[in-house]
Amino acid sequence: MLKIALAQINLLVGGIKANQIKIIQTAIDARDQQHADVVVFPELSITGYPPEDLLLRPDFIKQAAQAVLDIAKTVSGIDIVLGYPEKDGDDLYNSAVVLRDGNILTHYRKNALPNFGVFDEQRYFKSGNQICLFTVKGQSIALTICEDIWQQGLIAKNKQAGADLILTLNASPFHAGKIHQREEIVCQQAKEAQIALVYVNSIGGQDELVFDGASFVADAKGDVIFRAEEFAEQVSVVEFKGNNPIKSTSAPLYNEISSEYKALVLGVRDYTYKNGFKGALLGLSGGIDSALVLAIAVDALGVDQVEAVLMPSKYTQDMSNEDAILEAKALGIKYHTIAIEPAVSAFTEMLREVFEGTKKDSTEENIQARCRGIVLMAMSNKQGKLLLTTGNKSEMSVGYATLYGDMAGGFAPIKDVPKLLVYQLSEYRNTLSQVIPQRVITRPPSAELAPDQIDEDSLPAYSVLDPILAMYVEQDKSAKEIHAAGYQLDDINLAISLVDRNEYKRRQAPPGVKITPRAFGRDRRYPIASGYKGVS
Amino acid sequence: MLKIALAQINLLVGGIKANQIKIIQTAIDARDQQHADVVVFPELSITGYPPEDLLLRPDFIKQAAQAVLDIAKTVSGIDIVLGYPEKDGDDLYNSAVVLRDGNILTHYRKNALPNFGVFDEQRYFKSGNQICLFTVKGQSIALTICEDIWQQGLIAKNKQAGADLILTLNASPFHAGKIHQREEIVCQQAKEAQIALVYVNSIGGQDELVFDGASFVADAKGDVIFRAEEFAEQVSVVEFKGNNPIKSTSAPLYNEISSEYKALVLGVRDYTYKNGFKGALLGLSGGIDSALVLAIAVDALGVDQVEAVLMPSKYTQDMSNEDAILEAKALGIKYHTIAIEPAVSAFTEMLREVFEGTKKDSTEENIQARCRGIVLMAMSNKQGKLLLTTGNKSEMSVGYATLYGDMAGGFAPIKDVPKLLVYQLSEYRNTLSQVIPQRVITRPPSAELAPDQIDEDSLPAYSVLDPILAMYVEQDKSAKEIHAAGYQLDDINLAISLVDRNEYKRRQAPPGVKITPRAFGRDRRYPIASGYKGVS
Repeated sequence: MLKIALAQINLLVGGIKANQIKIIQTAIDARDQQHADVVVFPELSITGYPPEDLLLRPDFIKQAAQAVLDIAKTVSGIDIVLGYPEKDGDDLYNSAVVLRDGNILTHYRKNALPNFGVFDEQRYFKSGNQICLFTVKGQSIALTICEDIWQQGLIAKNKQAGADLILTLNASPFHAGKIHQREEIVCQQAKEAQIALVYVNSIGGQDELVFDGASFVADAKGDVIFRAEEFAEQVSVVEFKGNNPIKSTSAPLYNEISSEYKALVLGVRDYTYKNGFKGALLGLSGGIDSALVLAIAVDALGVDQVEAVLMPSKYTQDMSNEDAILEAKALGIKYHTIAIEPAVSAFTEMLREVFEGTKKDSTEENIQARCRGIVLMAMSNKQGKLLLTTGNKSEMSVGYATLYGDMAGGFAPIKDVPKLLVYQLSEYRNTLSQVIPQRVITRPPSAELAPDQIDEDSLPAYSVLDPILAMYVEQDKSAKEIHAAGYQLDDINLAISLVDRNEYKRRQAPPGVKITPRAFGRDRRYPIASGYKGVS
Repeated sequence: MLKIALAQINLLVGGIKANQIKIIQTAIDARDQQHADVVVFPELSITGYPPEDLLLRPDFIKQAAQAVLDIAKTVSGIDIVLGYPEKDGDDLYNSAVVLRDGNILTHYRKNALPNFGVFDEQRYFKSGNQICLFTVKGQSIALTICEDIWQQGLIAKNKQAGADLILTLNASPFHAGKIHQREEIVCQQAKEAQIALVYVNSIGGQDELVFDGASFVADAKGDVIFRAEEFAEQVSVVEFKGNNPIKSTSAPLYNEISSEYKALVLGVRDYTYKNGFKGALLGLSGGIDSALVLAIAVDALGVDQVEAVLMPSKYTQDMSNEDAILEAKALGIKYHTIAIEPAVSAFTEMLREVFEGTKKDSTEENIQARCRGIVLMAMSNKQGKLLLTTGNKSEMSVGYATLYGDMAGGFAPIKDVPKLLVYQLSEYRNTLSQVIPQRVITRPPSAELAPDQIDEDSLPAYSVLDPILAMYVEQDKSAKEIHAAGYQLDDINLAISLVDRNEYKRRQAPPGVKITPRAFGRDRRYPIASGYKGVS
């Protein structure tokens, strides 16, 4: 009976030595504990994904090739299938190799190189144009890599060439609903070609991306007969009768809101630890955004690793301080209170002369936000803790945030979470345990940078703003199309003009977890200087 | 006699309407004033280059197509050759069209799509695979676009197909020495194929890029017989006897240092105005970096549009203040002095309790830099002036800069200028008129954030650091290779480890002008979370 181990493990981009050690240990365990014949690792397992411009470094490419040879020499008695960047003359390929008893048995070069969204594979790689089959226990197994099987034809081509079974190595990043899209497309192809398929995905956070795992096996009817956990490492063995996979116990499938929450938690955890921070800190305002980020941080890193700072000003309402303290206490974290008034006064005085005769405007609001930024960065610098920013996607879209103020920090957990989803995630988190006071969820959102200020003074209601932003930012819809979808032109034009004009802020924002089909960052590349006006 | 106008004009990315108007006016002038038969505009003239993800917007693509039709209908009596993104079914092409008397006469689709360095063309476009010839006054003219003619073969292929002359539309960005590289490669191909060539380049700054113009005409021997100005708009007509271009007066060719200076000036000017700022301001420390940036800003925007702020602390030496004032006076700009001590004291007091028992470290230095950031940003916000940062490439490389402190600002003119080149550019600028005091050039550089601090306390001498950085950052050399080039491993490892670990700072830095073969930003895409260690 053929046994294939799906090695859904968390690898470190650029960490070739660490990845090599982890791959060897996983392969040995798969052989000795799980008695697997073949162990399959994710796409570019040696380098982690995406290695980006490290791929342009000859020393890096050499180290990766050496690591493959070292693994081959270290582990015998099991076929190891892994991914690495393969140099051939001047060309680089995104390749998979089969290592058997000290040698490279065969190798496959990825045919379809994605160069859209967050992907830049044509920057680095040449396309392969061959298929690759190898035989284990009489079964002819075909290798494919990620995008290959999203294209029509390659699975069928392998079947026609005599493949009994498809292996596919992946680094497929999460966004909401992706798991269903992925299984639908891949299983449909398995079904059409009438061939079983083993899909191994990466897991872990890498800068803006979270790889969600959920590796799976589909049978020749296109039915998923096993699925590994989402958002966790898992090495699972699936048995085959001939080339027919035997059903085994799948991990439970999360619903959309819980998968989004888990993606955020994993993204924060991996960014923090992969960058060598011991913990995280954040400014806690009593508003819903920082409340959610705090809950995510504690779930990601543990109570002892997270600190919060309350930084009231004269515009901070008492209920904000009260609620912030309630949140900190509900989670059991350490918190500090540092009023910003002394610094704000100092700047006001320092600028009195140059501002003589001018009117108050957002400048004075920004000074408050930036004083908070200085306090938080000082604590981050002193303690070596990662500063988390608390801005959401709606704010990032329209620039309702202060550069170097509340945007100051190393990681922005909810920068791809629209405000309405912030509410939903907060409600969801409270179903696990009550950590966000109800009043924080129900009161109208405010930046508290001016007397009695609320967000809706400057912006359309989020119930209007968020759908407009999704259509404009994520779906490339025009103002006219959004209008046709039932929104007011005034709201549309305000939202769009703010999005257009705030690219400069987003360009200086810290990275955060992508959870929508299009996040800001590598996923959406807009010019700053631009004459484009999306307004109608 | 055939007359071709090279329309080297400054276009606005995304500004389809503005570009359309400018193209029409230029074409009419070329026809009526210069009596040209053909006017050739740069690559993607309708949209500006690079339009980035605007190309994913259906409304944008439609507007571009409409603009082409509008231009065709508006101008008769001259062949207009321009570039635009051409949609065909689901595919988009980087195309050139010939407009003649109200119609699209023919169109060409770029064959070679660059997807390296700052270029992402395979993200948007499909490759064309045809050549395109059209006839004017009996001459068969072939169209090509930019990267096409950097590849072997296409010019020769056009010649074989009967072309008498090659037109090429370009958006070729500047870096030091690029003009020679460009002419050498292109002229060599013209020479080999024995065909004359008209090269029209874009001009102007766009975010990180400066297009340097220097459009030229080469004859069939590969000799440049005309060259337009560098870094300036110019519409020039070249006459042809048959297909043989007649020599005409070229603009003078700048040497490397002056072309770098001109690129910086143009980059600052266009970033400022294309983003709608009225002027710029910066912090003037008395050090060489801010002195150079001030000179560039004044040369870019004029004396009346630039303000400087001196922000001394207790660590600021008298000579720094004196020299800063000398610089401001030499240039005749308005300046202010705002001591940062009150704000620094306020923060020190606010943080006293949480910092109890800790030692002074870079945290306290960062607070000073960040107080300056707040002052400058407040002035920028209040006046609508663009804040320029003053950090150089050596500092950006090793992270010798404070995030939200001296890194705060909208544009970073010298972020791609290594420190040694900062000195050379300052000396060069002083040859035009003495604006930087000699003492600023000769004294040892210091951040003045601690008593008697100089850069070389923390970093290798710039004469050692800069070549190491160039090899590591721009040439992808390994520590071993740099060592073999004659540098000490201690210096190499310090420099490299600092580069590796400061990607997070660079990711939040403002854009600046690319002048080296590899700048930070779109040109060098590194992961932040990374296990790669370049040290030996």
